[in-house]
This record gives sequence, C-alpha cells and structure tokens, in this order.
Amino acid sequence: MDHPCAIRPAEHAVYRPDKMGKSTLFESPRLLVGLNCFEPGQEHALHAHAGLDKLYQVLEGQGEFLLAGRAIPMAAGVMLVAPAGVPHGIRNTGTTRLLVLAVLAQGPSALPD
Amino acid sequence: MDHPCAIRPAEHAVYRPDKMGKSTLFESPRLLVGLNCFEPGQEHALHAHAGLDKLYQVLEGQGEFLLAGRAIPMAAGVMLVAPAGVPHGIRNTGTTRLLVLAVLAQGPSALPD
Repeated sequence: MDHPCAIRPAEHAVYRPDKMGKSTLFESPRLLVGLNCFEPGQEHALHAHAGLDKLYQVLEGQGEFLLAGRAIPMAAGVMLVAPAGVPHGIRNTGTTRLLVLAVLAQGPSALPD
Repeated sequence: MDHPCAIRPAEHAVYRPDKMGKSTLFESPRLLVGLNCFEPGQEHALHAHAGLDKLYQVLEGQGEFLLAGRAIPMAAGVMLVAPAGVPHGIRNTGTTRLLVLAVLAQGPSALPD
C-alpha cells in the first residue's frame, strides 16, 4: 500500500471463520498499524509484548478488553493502551463483527542487539 | 491517566479559540498518543518529523490532510500514515469541529545518541 494515502480501515478488514483475522495497514521499523477482526464469539487470548506498547482503537462492534484478572466492556469509539509487558486481549461478546485498529510501537528495547 | 483503562478519546478533546488544541492520552519512550482538535477553519500547517512515523485516525468532523503539493479530503473513519520525513498537516474545512487521533512512534533513530 502506498503511503501517505488516506484509507478507510474497515475496507481492509479480513475476517476468518476459524479465528481472529488480521491485516496490516502500515509497517516500519518503528510502527506497525493493523486490524484485528473478530466474528461474534472470537477472541484474542491474553498475551503481552516485551518492549512494545500497543494502542487499540475500536472501530466497529462491541466486546471486552481482556486484562489480567478483569474484562472491560468496550464498543466503537473506545481506545485502550496496553503498555509494554502488560497482558491484554480482546473478546467479541456482541452479535455483530468487532473491528479494532491495533497500533504497535517498538522502541529500541524491542530491537535485536 | 492510569493505563490500561478504556477511554473515549472525544471526552478528552481540548479546543482552543486561537489555534489547534492538543491533548496527550498516553506517552512512553516508544509511543505518543494524543488528540489534535480543530475548530472550523483551523489548521496544523505542513510539517515533518525526522525519525518519527505518525498515524492519524479521524474521529469526528471532516477536512483535508495536507501533503506536499496536494490536499486529500477526509472525514471521520479515515486514517492516514505519514512516514518519517514526509510533510503532512491538517485543515478543518468543515462547519463543525474536527477531532483527530494522532499517534507518533519514535524508533531508535529519533532518540538522542
């Protein structure tokens, strides 16, 4: 994809019947911008990234952000930042598709020595 | 602001009568997440960041992304990535407020030696 160009992320969503779908919108050594695409009932299990901060911006649908020991209801328009090392996940608890913009920023600590 | 917590960015918007308003939602050595808030007619002039990629996600309103030599119409739901060194800006050409999520990722090249 050529950049800079203006796009509507929803037009690049990839849904899969068996598990969360993913697509990449932009990637550089500093930044990864992608989509996490959930059919009803699908989830991205709790996980953490060493040295990577992750921003979620919910674009369509509703569900829950999973955090260690708790779940936070969310819907389109809500954002969450999971700082490096903080476990996080997502579950689509709604009856429609859930589309989330996922932005990962890797600082120098995430790069190989 | 404690993180991770789910927020609605629009609730943290800061508008100013004299120029574009800005607010910071999250900051780390890797990632800066903020809001650019434009009253009708306001703009963020063309500029570039060495070593920083910038993601814009339009949350409310409509306007134009400014790029070197051209302007791209945009509205809520549209995103644009300005890779490091690429001049970019924003102008609110609409009649309502324009709210844009701005995410900057600084890789090792942006850090002091």
